[in-house]
Amino acid sequence: MNRNVAVVGAGSMGTAMAVLLSKNGNNVRLWSPMKDEIGMLKANKEHVTRLPGVKIPDSVEFTNEIEFAVKDAEVVVLAVPSQTTRQNCKTLAGLITRDTVVVTCSKGIEDGSCKLLSEIMQEELPDNSVAVLSGPSHAEEIGRDIPTTVVAASEKVEVASFLQDLFMTPNFRVYTNTDVIGVELGGALKNIIALCAGISDGLGYGDNTKAALMTRGIAEISRLGVAMGGNSETFSGLTGVGDLIVTCTSMHSRNRRAGILIGQGKSVQEALDEVNMVVEGVATTKPAYELAKRLGVSMPITNEAYSVLFEGKDPRTAVGDLMTRDKKTEM
Amino acid sequence: MNRNVAVVGAGSMGTAMAVLLSKNGNNVRLWSPMKDEIGMLKANKEHVTRLPGVKIPDSVEFTNEIEFAVKDAEVVVLAVPSQTTRQNCKTLAGLITRDTVVVTCSKGIEDGSCKLLSEIMQEELPDNSVAVLSGPSHAEEIGRDIPTTVVAASEKVEVASFLQDLFMTPNFRVYTNTDVIGVELGGALKNIIALCAGISDGLGYGDNTKAALMTRGIAEISRLGVAMGGNSETFSGLTGVGDLIVTCTSMHSRNRRAGILIGQGKSVQEALDEVNMVVEGVATTKPAYELAKRLGVSMPITNEAYSVLFEGKDPRTAVGDLMTRDKKTEM
Repeated sequence: MNRNVAVVGAGSMGTAMAVLLSKNGNNVRLWSPMKDEIGMLKANKEHVTRLPGVKIPDSVEFTNEIEFAVKDAEVVVLAVPSQTTRQNCKTLAGLITRDTVVVTCSKGIEDGSCKLLSEIMQEELPDNSVAVLSGPSHAEEIGRDIPTTVVAASEKVEVASFLQDLFMTPNFRVYTNTDVIGVELGGALKNIIALCAGISDGLGYGDNTKAALMTRGIAEISRLGVAMGGNSETFSGLTGVGDLIVTCTSMHSRNRRAGILIGQGKSVQEALDEVNMVVEGVATTKPAYELAKRLGVSMPITNEAYSVLFEGKDPRTAVGDLMTRDKKTEM
Repeated sequence: MNRNVAVVGAGSMGTAMAVLLSKNGNNVRLWSPMKDEIGMLKANKEHVTRLPGVKIPDSVEFTNEIEFAVKDAEVVVLAVPSQTTRQNCKTLAGLITRDTVVVTCSKGIEDGSCKLLSEIMQEELPDNSVAVLSGPSHAEEIGRDIPTTVVAASEKVEVASFLQDLFMTPNFRVYTNTDVIGVELGGALKNIIALCAGISDGLGYGDNTKAALMTRGIAEISRLGVAMGGNSETFSGLTGVGDLIVTCTSMHSRNRRAGILIGQGKSVQEALDEVNMVVEGVATTKPAYELAKRLGVSMPITNEAYSVLFEGKDPRTAVGDLMTRDKKTEM
């Protein structure tokens, strides 16, 4: 394809998307609000801190000017911290046309409103087609062209298919799905389970323990997702169990890394400071906890994460309480 | 509990089971056919090669005499290579009473007959209650008392409950399930996927790639399992996705280790020689391939594993063929 694409946000995922879409023949502008980040990108043709070792094609334009970034854009790719999605869409609202497709790579739930990112995008950009790109896809590996599979989800099947064509390469397989709720929730909630898997690792527990946490984790994600209108099968797919696996087992995952530090005895704030990147799982735990309460869905792992993150519960007690819950038959 | 238990097979899992059951108050005899293995166990009170660092309680008796091992046994725990299950049960047939409960920790499908281990056990021991213990449970971690969850599966719910009481400790949680087919198949077939995950790692692919393989892996395991009469929910549980996760992501897994060596360019035989322990995934691939053909179930990963293991297909081509299969929508 040869489309005009604006990538909003120049972190590891934004940069990886710019590289992928540029190599795929599109005209790409990569925007960051930070002057020194754009300066660094221009000087190095590489994001030296967030995606080191990945050369950015010469054709990618870097800019601090959002008006310039999205001018004539047929597609806007959001790769921003999830909690800034609304503000970024408000900015876009005055600048893009109704024909522009807006797709987010971010994963989270809005604190306070408990809304999904696709809901926020549609609220702020009511005339635009919105979509979500999700799946087991560390930016570090996308940038290195390692075989990766993701899902493009939109309520409009033609929008999902359009994005499939836009992003697909031999090493970046894109599937389509119209279950936006299921795709988004899997991506958002898995960060909570990854935090907990990290805590378990940090406490010195083993692969057996982590596998048990992950198995119960996808079950509680699926319970909440179905209660919110998602398709239970989506949670068995790439954006559910697939993304959960990659996030809970890889050192690329900042959620898992933050959890490890908490498990090792650091405070939540110390852990966040040390990771020094957005840890979506922390911001997502609050609205997930609220949603579970509101809908009457049992989410024991999310509840324990909430207690550890916001009520000062000792992580070892939390994992112990999870492991010794009484449940006699598996089904 | 205070039961007489015979553990048949003194590899890593048999030794871990003997330690667990002895600490839990039972009278345990641990049997191996190998004189030097029993000598080593007696001399060290530790399995120095298979489960180093784990002290075996003094009350555990070690023996080469199967008659002595199973005399008065109320429970026999099989922890033998899956392909020797039938022969071991034939031996037991003349020695145990009809009241003895026989439970296997092995995971596999019989080559040739394509039968599950529980079927073989019931065929050879028609008057005994048989059961399966499975789940994400590396012996190395059970031995170190790391929090672990497993499932005791028997068609008779009272047998499953009896085993739950026998094995359960605060750090070894046992759930019950009557879906023996589902529990067994998850445990057996995940070894094939772990081999392939290892091959992907050995080829230098990333976490994104492995997560995609695992996600599609549990889907094809579930398809075969349901066709054979298993419950689809079982495959989302501890013995399905849980065991798949632990086997595909841990260096404890000999299946994954063998796969890594194959991915790095070693022949299948060289990989097996280097791992130097039973690699169940290799023996299981043939009957799984046969079953899929017989029942008309699509199992692309198992098919590629078969081609690599038994038809000399290049692993890189096999992973490439998997990644580029045409599948446009996720569901």
